[in-house]
Amino acid sequence: MSTLILLRHGHSEWNAKNLFTGWVDVDLNEQGLAEASRGAELLAEAGLAPDVLHTSLLRRAIRTAEIVLNGIDRHWIPVRRSWRLNERHYGALQGKDKKETLEEFGEEQFMLWRRSYDVPPPAIEDDSEFSQTSDARYAGLPDELLPRTEALANVIDRLLPYWYDSIVPDLLADRVVLVTAHGNSLRALVKHLDGLSEEAVVGLNIPTGIPLVYELDDNLRPKVAGGMYLDPDAAADAIAAVANQGR
Amino acid sequence: MSTLILLRHGHSEWNAKNLFTGWVDVDLNEQGLAEASRGAELLAEAGLAPDVLHTSLLRRAIRTAEIVLNGIDRHWIPVRRSWRLNERHYGALQGKDKKETLEEFGEEQFMLWRRSYDVPPPAIEDDSEFSQTSDARYAGLPDELLPRTEALANVIDRLLPYWYDSIVPDLLADRVVLVTAHGNSLRALVKHLDGLSEEAVVGLNIPTGIPLVYELDDNLRPKVAGGMYLDPDAAADAIAAVANQGR
Repeated sequence: MSTLILLRHGHSEWNAKNLFTGWVDVDLNEQGLAEASRGAELLAEAGLAPDVLHTSLLRRAIRTAEIVLNGIDRHWIPVRRSWRLNERHYGALQGKDKKETLEEFGEEQFMLWRRSYDVPPPAIEDDSEFSQTSDARYAGLPDELLPRTEALANVIDRLLPYWYDSIVPDLLADRVVLVTAHGNSLRALVKHLDGLSEEAVVGLNIPTGIPLVYELDDNLRPKVAGGMYLDPDAAADAIAAVANQGR
Repeated sequence: MSTLILLRHGHSEWNAKNLFTGWVDVDLNEQGLAEASRGAELLAEAGLAPDVLHTSLLRRAIRTAEIVLNGIDRHWIPVRRSWRLNERHYGALQGKDKKETLEEFGEEQFMLWRRSYDVPPPAIEDDSEFSQTSDARYAGLPDELLPRTEALANVIDRLLPYWYDSIVPDLLADRVVLVTAHGNSLRALVKHLDGLSEEAVVGLNIPTGIPLVYELDDNLRPKVAGGMYLDPDAAADAIAAVANQGR
């Protein structure tokens, strides 16, 4: 049996500003820092000690992991990072105000970009200040691999090779694996783990800062569909709050 | 040509308390956090951007690296950790007050343990609260590899395999390599790099928080003996202060 812990980073500076973030490398805000500390407490209470960390290349996930691991005295475990765990690339919407975007394009188009399975926003221009084409951390990526926009379907396609090649070997070696990442990269992973349909994953929300634990069988299938949040009440409240946002 | 940056972590909670630390995993204190931030500033001013980090398994070095890399926007680079970069194991002195130890054993014995090349302090008992025999991070080390005490000579012996097997390949791949570690593990590395005698390394002091940069030729020999501190005046002052401590 293998243990996989998924943790979505908390609030960032751009949550507060209501901007689309995607691959823009903003930091956690105070609330996000507190969420990371709370994640550490939950892991400590559950007696869960990760043996290895996998994280994206984005500061908000990296810093979340640092706070969590330092908080549970596991700061010394091996770390693996990959762009394949990054948040969905939000294309030309990166850096834009969400409310203004809604007003400019209308609710139907807006929700299609936000919540459809395979309709990406318009591609970002390479000369945009929010493009990653001149970001040093992706200098080793062949140009055709660097996204200019992504739908959730694209995230799944680029995440699964990392799952199979880097995370699965750790799980099969009986390591307790922590993945600190983002709303959409974790939705992509959960879709794969739970075998969700395209429709189901579109309605899935993963709360921030609450570790989601999957016990996996020898075929790396979840023993409990959907995994177990370490604070189920807080997770349910957060999921209900998102579901009610549109009403 | 390869670039190697050595950085000794700054003041820890046990510096302030005047206790022998060694492998005990104490955190940086406020001064140590500020030293790490200063290290980041110096790297930024010099335009040095590490491509890979190597660090010990101890929190004070790990946290120093996190602050430095976050400060220079390189938080996303690959990280390698090893017990072979740990501070010298201080044996039965770990957790003891330095002043009391000096009074108990006399200055000659005290200085022999602190500054001889190959005379280790007495071994720590496995049931000491400051022993690492039940520390999860070393659970994968065969018992005969886990130190109970070390002299500088022992540090060199256990560090060099990591140098050759893990750091050298990064340097030969033209990566800018950052090593965040400890007074004695960095002295061991500098002895090797500069080909110091046993007598010379005993008198060597590496200041905290000031990046020490080695440009290495194709044979990984320093172009400038002793490397270059990014703040040479501050480094000279710190070295002089240590040299004057005994007077």
